[in-house]
Amino acid sequence: MTHWTLDSIHAALPAIEQELARTAAERDKAGGHAAEQKELLRQNGLLLLVVPKEYGGIGASWSETLAIVRRIARVDSAMAHLLAFQTLQLSGVLSYGSDEQRALYLRETVALNHWWGNSANPADPRLMATEKDGGLILQGIKGFCSGTLGSHRLLTTALHQPSGKILIAVLPTAREGITVHDDWDPIGQRQTDSTSVSYEQVRLEWSEVLFRPDAVSTPFLTLRGVVAQLILVNLYLGMAEGAFEHARDYTLNQGRPWFAAGVQRAADDPYVIHRYAEMHLQIRAARALADEAGVELDKVWRIGPELVAEQRGRAALAVAEAKVLAHRTALAVGQDVFDVCGARATKATLGLDRFWRNARTHTLHDPIDYKLRDVGRYALEHVLPEPTLYS
Amino acid sequence: MTHWTLDSIHAALPAIEQELARTAAERDKAGGHAAEQKELLRQNGLLLLVVPKEYGGIGASWSETLAIVRRIARVDSAMAHLLAFQTLQLSGVLSYGSDEQRALYLRETVALNHWWGNSANPADPRLMATEKDGGLILQGIKGFCSGTLGSHRLLTTALHQPSGKILIAVLPTAREGITVHDDWDPIGQRQTDSTSVSYEQVRLEWSEVLFRPDAVSTPFLTLRGVVAQLILVNLYLGMAEGAFEHARDYTLNQGRPWFAAGVQRAADDPYVIHRYAEMHLQIRAARALADEAGVELDKVWRIGPELVAEQRGRAALAVAEAKVLAHRTALAVGQDVFDVCGARATKATLGLDRFWRNARTHTLHDPIDYKLRDVGRYALEHVLPEPTLYS
Amino acid sequence: MTHWTLDSIHAALPAIEQELARTAAERDKAGGHAAEQKELLRQNGLLLLVVPKEYGGIGASWSETLAIVRRIARVDSAMAHLLAFQTLQLSGVLSYGSDEQRALYLRETVALNHWWGNSANPADPRLMATEKDGGLILQGIKGFCSGTLGSHRLLTTALHQPSGKILIAVLPTAREGITVHDDWDPIGQRQTDSTSVSYEQVRLEWSEVLFRPDAVSTPFLTLRGVVAQLILVNLYLGMAEGAFEHARDYTLNQGRPWFAAGVQRAADDPYVIHRYAEMHLQIRAARALADEAGVELDKVWRIGPELVAEQRGRAALAVAEAKVLAHRTALAVGQDVFDVCGARATKATLGLDRFWRNARTHTLHDPIDYKLRDVGRYALEHVLPEPTLYS
Amino acid sequence: MTHWTLDSIHAALPAIEQELARTAAERDKAGGHAAEQKELLRQNGLLLLVVPKEYGGIGASWSETLAIVRRIARVDSAMAHLLAFQTLQLSGVLSYGSDEQRALYLRETVALNHWWGNSANPADPRLMATEKDGGLILQGIKGFCSGTLGSHRLLTTALHQPSGKILIAVLPTAREGITVHDDWDPIGQRQTDSTSVSYEQVRLEWSEVLFRPDAVSTPFLTLRGVVAQLILVNLYLGMAEGAFEHARDYTLNQGRPWFAAGVQRAADDPYVIHRYAEMHLQIRAARALADEAGVELDKVWRIGPELVAEQRGRAALAVAEAKVLAHRTALAVGQDVFDVCGARATKATLGLDRFWRNARTHTLHDPIDYKLRDVGRYALEHVLPEPTLYS
Repeated sequence: MTHWTLDSIHAALPAIEQELARTAAERDKAGGHAAEQKELLRQNGLLLLVVPKEYGGIGASWSETLAIVRRIARVDSAMAHLLAFQTLQLSGVLSYGSDEQRALYLRETVALNHWWGNSANPADPRLMATEKDGGLILQGIKGFCSGTLGSHRLLTTALHQPSGKILIAVLPTAREGITVHDDWDPIGQRQTDSTSVSYEQVRLEWSEVLFRPDAVSTPFLTLRGVVAQLILVNLYLGMAEGAFEHARDYTLNQGRPWFAAGVQRAADDPYVIHRYAEMHLQIRAARALADEAGVELDKVWRIGPELVAEQRGRAALAVAEAKVLAHRTALAVGQDVFDVCGARATKATLGLDRFWRNARTHTLHDPIDYKLRDVGRYALEHVLPEPTLYS
Repeated sequence: MTHWTLDSIHAALPAIEQELARTAAERDKAGGHAAEQKELLRQNGLLLLVVPKEYGGIGASWSETLAIVRRIARVDSAMAHLLAFQTLQLSGVLSYGSDEQRALYLRETVALNHWWGNSANPADPRLMATEKDGGLILQGIKGFCSGTLGSHRLLTTALHQPSGKILIAVLPTAREGITVHDDWDPIGQRQTDSTSVSYEQVRLEWSEVLFRPDAVSTPFLTLRGVVAQLILVNLYLGMAEGAFEHARDYTLNQGRPWFAAGVQRAADDPYVIHRYAEMHLQIRAARALADEAGVELDKVWRIGPELVAEQRGRAALAVAEAKVLAHRTALAVGQDVFDVCGARATKATLGLDRFWRNARTHTLHDPIDYKLRDVGRYALEHVLPEPTLYS
Repeated sequence: MTHWTLDSIHAALPAIEQELARTAAERDKAGGHAAEQKELLRQNGLLLLVVPKEYGGIGASWSETLAIVRRIARVDSAMAHLLAFQTLQLSGVLSYGSDEQRALYLRETVALNHWWGNSANPADPRLMATEKDGGLILQGIKGFCSGTLGSHRLLTTALHQPSGKILIAVLPTAREGITVHDDWDPIGQRQTDSTSVSYEQVRLEWSEVLFRPDAVSTPFLTLRGVVAQLILVNLYLGMAEGAFEHARDYTLNQGRPWFAAGVQRAADDPYVIHRYAEMHLQIRAARALADEAGVELDKVWRIGPELVAEQRGRAALAVAEAKVLAHRTALAVGQDVFDVCGARATKATLGLDRFWRNARTHTLHDPIDYKLRDVGRYALEHVLPEPTLYS
Repeated sequence: MTHWTLDSIHAALPAIEQELARTAAERDKAGGHAAEQKELLRQNGLLLLVVPKEYGGIGASWSETLAIVRRIARVDSAMAHLLAFQTLQLSGVLSYGSDEQRALYLRETVALNHWWGNSANPADPRLMATEKDGGLILQGIKGFCSGTLGSHRLLTTALHQPSGKILIAVLPTAREGITVHDDWDPIGQRQTDSTSVSYEQVRLEWSEVLFRPDAVSTPFLTLRGVVAQLILVNLYLGMAEGAFEHARDYTLNQGRPWFAAGVQRAADDPYVIHRYAEMHLQIRAARALADEAGVELDKVWRIGPELVAEQRGRAALAVAEAKVLAHRTALAVGQDVFDVCGARATKATLGLDRFWRNARTHTLHDPIDYKLRDVGRYALEHVLPEPTLYS
């Protein structure tokens, strides 16, 4: 049983945020693996947020968990992503695993307080599983494997060769034949270690398979896609809030009025005030929808395996609505903060552009136009989003 | 004690909505006084929504009341406005009145189930009150006096001549010297009877004055401005929802795909779907903020005279945020519904343009740019909106 | 030979504009046929603008003609539409007619100075032509037949029954069996007489057919669709400019500053100034593209029957680009003028909403989303718009 | 007399562009001084574009010059900026210099084909000039001194101490006491060497002063601000065009359709097509206004010292209008290109984000809100922009 609690985590958060913020701009520039910062999250119990109390975890709800993800995203959205994806892998164990698997993997996670990596990118079909000697062999590669570097366990998806169906499994990252490549060098979210991972004749036992190729999906099992989308919502929103707060601090403490404005303080410029209003309102609306979607997800998640398609669809819709707003807000605020800070705020050492770069990188996870299509179909025909790995 | 209840009103609403909808387009064209429709609201108890149960009324909260206003605004935003302003006048009696005045006027309202008119337009300084013979004489004119025609009581504001301060009073509409002019002919909200009312040597007793020129305002008393703003939020939102539902019905039942779209149904056009998504999301966000603002207003209204400025300011901010979104949503949806219906939807008999005209007319009540300034000042400096008659 | 010239028309324009403006708001409200105003255009030679000098006409280019259409659209976009469609019908005679037909119909038009009606709506397939006794019989109905009422000649398209192909013909409006219905009652462009016209066993001679069912189209012949689109561009732009000028006049002469603005004149409100800037820039950009498209159309029109597809496509693209901007500008300015004028500008007698209603009605002629698709295909793949009746 | 001509430059441009493009992403990452690339421009005669033929230069007009700046900005907007600012300094010599100064400095520039640096940032008041021994002493510092590193001559502005007025002078960069700092490390436009330059007791002769503290400005002399603004317009536009062309190439050659799109090629996705349309139209409109402004500037520049305020104002207005569009286009396209390329386009080695970072950095040169205010004042009151150093 972990000694951390939701209360202890909340008590530790201000210090964690401050420490992450201290080096965030610099680490963004450098990129690479943030071992120290990941350890900071680990040493404060954040890895165990969604592990139910029955397995010794903290037992936080999705709303509670994602509120923390959002806070951390304000100062360091790469660390927030790693934390959120830790919870996503654990949720995979929770929903797909058998009782034994849940007990095994979750208790182990609590005992060792270890990180999970993501090797489950649904858009990448290059990893194959073939049957051999009563088990399986994995061969191929997966891209965008966030958090794999430094992890102890992986959640992996592969195409089962004879059947062409997907299987979901758990492996130790250290298993022979698995190589985590150091090839993540993007324009934003630079410390999420979303590298590729290759599998060279990697042995996988059936007992490690959470979801077998012949298993039947259910509305509850497809919730993982909804969880992943709501994680993105909260990351985007945190980026927007972080950019906003940085700008606010700058305008109030370092802002200079434009010579033609005829005011003494930048904060008295009528156009600066309007720009703050617009940014605030975008964040305000995105937050309202994100919070409502969180409540909705908590509700359907608690229902568990009895969840029916209609309930799942309502939650997916709420998340899709929130996602469009959060997506646009993160980009717009990431861009507009410069207008309220002025030319001096383009210094690289300030790193004010990282909010836009992080948002721009992460908002490409899946195209907003197809999120809009889902929303539009509901709006027009009251058709709920079809369960896919992105909706 | 009224025999109507919130439940009875909700039970009656579908029929009321249907009846208002039946003639709404036609009445919009004709303009003028909607005696029959006002009577329909009256005969179903809607005039007594905000009268507390202790005075024999229904005792609905602002959230409950404005949810009904919003529903009616979907089919007939002029009637919704009249209903909402009825509650606004009654709220004036509730907050400004002495115990005796409250008892007198509210019990009378319940007993006679009568309409109140608005003669309290704060932007119009043309009505003067001078002292005479131990009472007062009103002389001048007031514009935008919604609901005065056909009302039994007026809430009136006037400038007290010697002091230059405002007083608030109640008068019977039928009092000698009061003339309700028939001069309301706008491009939208055509049946709100927002005429001008002139006062020719009208006698007013001090016992009819709710708020005396020498009275001191309090955060609670200035809540009336916040109530008025939240009424507008719900009217705008109802207009947007009404336009949206009309369009949806049209696209599904009468829509024809554009020849170049290559689809069988208008509802399968990818661009039509996107347009529905955008309209839906605007409404969705505006609704979330409007609902939150309603909860906030309920909370501070219940506090009553002990309300402090900070609490009042929080509610005013929530309402201002919601108002910007609702304002933009009503205009945008009122305009964009045509794109998803096509050229045939411009028939005058359909009256699909009335949503835009209603929205355009009513959203000019007070300029959105100064609502944005209030929001921006809070966003940037955490300054809450100053109490004015519009914030 | 007409005695009017482009110079005489320009000299007469200010008086024409003033006269149309004088009654425009009132006539918009009444709707119906504007016989007097049509006669005003006629008595000043505007019906003969595009008739080449060799047939006795004025011989104005498209740019010259549409500049006049745009000016008239500022004050009365219904009259501008009628004038523009006069030129469109005449251009049909010019491009589809044989030498004899051109001589016959254009000289007649000059001699009698008469109006042409549009019975050529390409989206309406309900008018059929069957062969009989060496000629044809027309049977059926056409919708949106602008300008037919009060016209002497019609340009008509019908589906030739055995072949299923389109034919284009000229008929006298007075021919037996043709009935012009009085069924045009839209929310905007209320005086364009875009009624339906029914044909009951109407005799048509082959000599009256400009384009036979077995004729082959050419890039030059399909230019008519481009001309029609550029007419719309100029109508939209004129609406925007008219709304803008009305607002400007109002703000400068009747505007009152908002109490919270802290300025003496509405024109000094920083937010009002910004709104004027945004409206101005939209108009400015739309005008630049409209003017460039006009030059492009003049160029390809002059080439005549030798025109090749690539040249035609360039002009169609330029017009499509201009159309998207003009469409959006007319709607946006039609809506935003109210924000710079305030609540008092919603008086019905002012009729400031007619600009939006006219724009909203006319911009539904064909969906902007498919105009955007044409532009997008060019932008991405350098594919020029396919010739259709709308592009 | 230079042997380069406008024709020889145009012939060389494709190779120059290709060479700059080859290393642009990499150099953007590294930042610092691009000696080799600057030499490439120099060796092809681009430094002499605006030097009149009478001084041995190429004698290109502003339109011709800025068309080349725009082309180079498509592949490398930092080099384009350096080139453009070279022309700006030379234009300063042309307009402020006496006949002797013009002859001296321009012939020297042609003879040595050398670079000029900008030490004339008008917003920075920290450089002072005091009189001493019949000459002047410069003391202080200037920020944002683009192109100073590696230059032979500087155009410098300083505050003349006794009078508090500005003087404009030419100095050799190598003069004793001048130090070019290596402190330019921004988020975009990373190779413009916009460092600070400090002056430690630097001697300046009156003969080197182009504009004396007691000189009177004229409309023609204030044109320099308009030239600077039109340079920015063309840089922004080039950035937008460059981002667009990169995206187009990517979509066509590397794009993959989203799984839910149901199309074979990304280029067939209806939403991708719409996004290209929107980007194209923004660029299209900005280009139209930029080109018109170029024509306008050529016209007023040719007038020379006789230029009157009204003419100067017309040009300033045209440039201001174009600037707002170009500013918004560069940002919007820089952001939106990612949506049509997808997640894989966020690889740092691709450097697709540099267009946004360059645009975001440079568009903060002066606030768009005050450009809009200038445009709005003209739109509403027909007041032309007041000559300042930014308008």
